[in-house]
Amino acid sequence: MLERFIDINSDLGESYGAFRIGADAELFPIISSANVACGFHGGDPKTIDRTLREATAQKVRVGAHPSYPDLVGFGRRNIAATPDDVYADVLYQLGAMDAFCRAQGIAMQHVKAHGALSNVAAKDRATADAIMAAVKAFNPRLLVFALPQSQLHFAAEAAGLPVIMEAFADRAYNTDYTLVARSIPGAMITDPELAAERMARLVFEGVIQTITGEDIPLPADSICIHSDTPTAVSIATALKARFDTDGIGIRSPGAA
Amino acid sequence: MLERFIDINSDLGESYGAFRIGADAELFPIISSANVACGFHGGDPKTIDRTLREATAQKVRVGAHPSYPDLVGFGRRNIAATPDDVYADVLYQLGAMDAFCRAQGIAMQHVKAHGALSNVAAKDRATADAIMAAVKAFNPRLLVFALPQSQLHFAAEAAGLPVIMEAFADRAYNTDYTLVARSIPGAMITDPELAAERMARLVFEGVIQTITGEDIPLPADSICIHSDTPTAVSIATALKARFDTDGIGIRSPGAA
Amino acid sequence: MLERFIDINSDLGESYGAFRIGADAELFPIISSANVACGFHGGDPKTIDRTLREATAQKVRVGAHPSYPDLVGFGRRNIAATPDDVYADVLYQLGAMDAFCRAQGIAMQHVKAHGALSNVAAKDRATADAIMAAVKAFNPRLLVFALPQSQLHFAAEAAGLPVIMEAFADRAYNTDYTLVARSIPGAMITDPELAAERMARLVFEGVIQTITGEDIPLPADSICIHSDTPTAVSIATALKARFDTDGIGIRSPGAA
Amino acid sequence: MLERFIDINSDLGESYGAFRIGADAELFPIISSANVACGFHGGDPKTIDRTLREATAQKVRVGAHPSYPDLVGFGRRNIAATPDDVYADVLYQLGAMDAFCRAQGIAMQHVKAHGALSNVAAKDRATADAIMAAVKAFNPRLLVFALPQSQLHFAAEAAGLPVIMEAFADRAYNTDYTLVARSIPGAMITDPELAAERMARLVFEGVIQTITGEDIPLPADSICIHSDTPTAVSIATALKARFDTDGIGIRSPGAA
Repeated sequence: MLERFIDINSDLGESYGAFRIGADAELFPIISSANVACGFHGGDPKTIDRTLREATAQKVRVGAHPSYPDLVGFGRRNIAATPDDVYADVLYQLGAMDAFCRAQGIAMQHVKAHGALSNVAAKDRATADAIMAAVKAFNPRLLVFALPQSQLHFAAEAAGLPVIMEAFADRAYNTDYTLVARSIPGAMITDPELAAERMARLVFEGVIQTITGEDIPLPADSICIHSDTPTAVSIATALKARFDTDGIGIRSPGAA
Repeated sequence: MLERFIDINSDLGESYGAFRIGADAELFPIISSANVACGFHGGDPKTIDRTLREATAQKVRVGAHPSYPDLVGFGRRNIAATPDDVYADVLYQLGAMDAFCRAQGIAMQHVKAHGALSNVAAKDRATADAIMAAVKAFNPRLLVFALPQSQLHFAAEAAGLPVIMEAFADRAYNTDYTLVARSIPGAMITDPELAAERMARLVFEGVIQTITGEDIPLPADSICIHSDTPTAVSIATALKARFDTDGIGIRSPGAA
Repeated sequence: MLERFIDINSDLGESYGAFRIGADAELFPIISSANVACGFHGGDPKTIDRTLREATAQKVRVGAHPSYPDLVGFGRRNIAATPDDVYADVLYQLGAMDAFCRAQGIAMQHVKAHGALSNVAAKDRATADAIMAAVKAFNPRLLVFALPQSQLHFAAEAAGLPVIMEAFADRAYNTDYTLVARSIPGAMITDPELAAERMARLVFEGVIQTITGEDIPLPADSICIHSDTPTAVSIATALKARFDTDGIGIRSPGAA
Repeated sequence: MLERFIDINSDLGESYGAFRIGADAELFPIISSANVACGFHGGDPKTIDRTLREATAQKVRVGAHPSYPDLVGFGRRNIAATPDDVYADVLYQLGAMDAFCRAQGIAMQHVKAHGALSNVAAKDRATADAIMAAVKAFNPRLLVFALPQSQLHFAAEAAGLPVIMEAFADRAYNTDYTLVARSIPGAMITDPELAAERMARLVFEGVIQTITGEDIPLPADSICIHSDTPTAVSIATALKARFDTDGIGIRSPGAA
């Protein structure tokens, strides 16, 4: 029997000083890749240090999770940053987090843009190109996490960077591969069993059912679980149980 | 005739966004090592990028200039940071700046603590050790700039890190190698010719005259010119003229 | 029978953007005075707005809770700020919070320094005087919360500002009115019933038992419950139950 | 002969800690109204204090100059802030600056939005309304500086707040009262004599010549000189000389 594997990623290390956020302790034992905040929306230096020690102990691979500089807005607000701003901000954050990887003796596996920076880069090629320029200048072997058919995906390919396609366990899809806007009923998949069923089908059949009921092919190397949704831990737990039953291994792309 | 060389270092890249500070343009053509602000007291990502491009163009070697996180205080106020705080803050800043070195295809040469962090580390061994732990974890070949006989000096030696001894062109010395407090008359050497004379003697004879008139031996691999003093450019210019006349080359320790 | 009243105060509104901290919802119905973070260690503008709306709804009186500018350190680290720094930082924070009081149509009742600023001001008269200068320049009718016999207490009296003496429900005392250092066993009072017993005695007899077993007279107008200790809510609840039983009303000093 | 008066306003107090910016010392003796940065794009507490002392000494009236929270971007980048964000951010800044007015015994005269916040509010009514809600809640007698026919102008009128119409000495106009985009040749008026001529005509005739050569009526109560343009001081000086010659008094609207 052919063994199947998939990555599960989550945003961890988003605490800031005395301000604790996220279900890091519960998610670390389940996931295979952690997107670690780099200080611009969360993740002060000691939090990065603590998060990378925990990732190393749990054998979870890590990536940088750069953001617009907007701590009070948690990186969720678009900022009219120029490509030069984005290039420098991303390069800075990649380096800052990588220093802690070096100190732990581990390699940074990937980069995944956070929040508003991710949303803007999905649609705006200049922003996506600026992120890729920083990644390429820093380390062209970093895996770039991207939504299929997004500008980030295209920019990564154009830059010759390896791309990891992401699917979302907790979100409904439109037929054009975009996520259904949160304001629309049904946009969020909150039932852990349903989420697990959809993801198992994705792994075995390579398809996902859209909000209008059609199946569309969806290439996916990694499944994202949003760590800050109330259902994050229950969805992660349901996914792991289902994958164990179905013989699907949870494995980071860097370990493949 | 034996050729002699000495390094001249200065703190550059301390601007922050639209806020411009320092005489970078005038000093870059004279100095051989630049201590580049890493974002905690100055030096936002685009300023780091611009500064490292200029350093590369001018063939000036660069080092990280980490600080306490105190932008409004320009890193000049002691903060009761724990060694864990200092370790993580320094590691973060080393990595952030190094990313821009990588992008420029240059190697980071050294590290020099800024302002209050430097002053505290000169006297407090725990702080000095925390800085050294970060440097060693990051890159044990980085040169550590330190005042002779300071706790930073001892901590670097204990950590097995290479040390570059610093002398100050614009400051008077006590007989115990400490700098005369700025509040004492004569603490600042503001006459460029006098500064040049003292530094030429330092290079040729290895001694400096203290504020009480005695000569003390002072090992010095690098001469620091404070970029934010009004006389910085004139002292740098006088030093260069004198060194040209005397056949002293200005050369970074990493290029030796 | 003579009715007795005492104030209970707690630090609330210390969340920052998406980062939530503190047991505000549980404490608001019990306490009578809220010390509201002003943005320098927590308490972004929207959090201040939300906190003051809730305080108004719950009829809890509010005060400013100014801090050193140290978000990542939650205002708990000493900063070598000059008196001029402290004066301007406190004045800024008083004004910022007062704007939200005006918008709610309420009056700011008091000021209580936070964390390291409070600790420094308890011992350093210059810092205490700088805080008082800001308070007096802003509104000389603000009540100043202070530990008895601290420099903050003396500075407030010297400035002619009204002082509210604070006692701590969750801390052991030395005979000189200072709090037992947290590092010493028994420093923290974690048993809610014991805390309530000590505070009831304080109200009725005006004394508190020190860690060495003696009773000392302790003038106290307000009891502080630290909102960020795990036992905050259970201590507050025990206090309220005990005070209800004993006929002690919980009332803010501004409402007296 | 009828005496004529006009206000000249400029953005001052935009320095931040050790970072000095702007020609405050040169402009204070000429202008009548200062828009003082409130800490979000510049203007730390000590800078506000220093600026208000100088304004008081020079008898220049002051207003708050609130911004998006974007120090590194100097408040010049649009941020996708919600109206709730804008309301709270503006209210916070109004209060912070007002505390220093109280300490100086002066009254805050006006409010003028800075940079990107101003540009967004000129076009987006929801943002303009949020600013006005903060102003009205804080002090409904504050004068609101606005471009004629902007959404900020309309929002202020709808809120019943007094409006001061602004004209720009250093910018060319389109026929619809908008400013010619900086990217278009001729957008900036850099010749001090030309700027003075245009402003004198504005005062006497109430018209301004557009970039296409037509005269349009322009109601103007105040002339803005951008403090951060290289020509700020020479334009201010030329204006004052011309106004002295023509018998036009420079007077703040609050002093009228």
